[in-house]
Amino acid sequence: MVHSPVLAVPRDGRQSDMALALQRGVGRLFRARGHAIVTELVLATGRRADIIALGPSGEITIVEIKSSIADFRADGKWPDYAPYCDRLYFASHAGVPQEIFPEQAGLILADAYGAEILREAPHAPLVAARRKAMTLRFAQAAAHRLHGLFDPEAGFREML
Amino acid sequence: MVHSPVLAVPRDGRQSDMALALQRGVGRLFRARGHAIVTELVLATGRRADIIALGPSGEITIVEIKSSIADFRADGKWPDYAPYCDRLYFASHAGVPQEIFPEQAGLILADAYGAEILREAPHAPLVAARRKAMTLRFAQAAAHRLHGLFDPEAGFREML
Repeated sequence: MVHSPVLAVPRDGRQSDMALALQRGVGRLFRARGHAIVTELVLATGRRADIIALGPSGEITIVEIKSSIADFRADGKWPDYAPYCDRLYFASHAGVPQEIFPEQAGLILADAYGAEILREAPHAPLVAARRKAMTLRFAQAAAHRLHGLFDPEAGFREML
Repeated sequence: MVHSPVLAVPRDGRQSDMALALQRGVGRLFRARGHAIVTELVLATGRRADIIALGPSGEITIVEIKSSIADFRADGKWPDYAPYCDRLYFASHAGVPQEIFPEQAGLILADAYGAEILREAPHAPLVAARRKAMTLRFAQAAAHRLHGLFDPEAGFREML
């Protein structure tokens, strides 16, 4: 069994233990590649991306975590993420058949301790205005969460 | 006496209790104005800015904290920060005479619980390339620190 990793945002019942374990493993992979990550980022559409990675040159990757076949089947809206990143991946674990994942996205095999890329994602560069908006959203979310941890009285009650 | 606020980065002896208290108060001011903040951000020059605030539209503010006359006098290099922000402020407390601070920068009066702007800073907009670089640096620092808090094993030993 995997261990439940600690959380980058307050746990709210949306994520299973397995999904949290995969989130930690994928975070380590991107960290090792020089990317900064934020989890559970709400996009302009109101949808919530599981992991957003920001690369050394500003490249933006979204990773959607699927911890079971049912989890993937329940999500018909994954193509909605593509316009918000340069590269889109699914991440899953060895117990889920790889062939269920569409080839229009990359594929990552993860556990609680790390991850590897099985199939690279197609590269579809963001337009400049959306990259700027995504980078700002990423920066604000990360900084607000960090600030909220260290000064909970600073007025974060209305935020996630 | 002010209380020592908790830290957004590991305490390393660079900051006095007073400077940390002022940092917290200034953070609350910018938070209330809708800005996200990161403390102790290393710039491209290698110099470390006390507080960087990122506004709702991407505007970048640097605040240098001066907790005593001596603290201000010891810093002859403050104009070096101006090229890295849209607005530059000094922040200090009621025990330091306001007239020692140069009019080329804004001035903030702070304590551990909040702050107010006594003099607005001149607005000198960043060029696009530097704004992009600063936003990226801010985003990466905030996300790496948050990630490091929640998964210290993810490979942050070489970082602050």
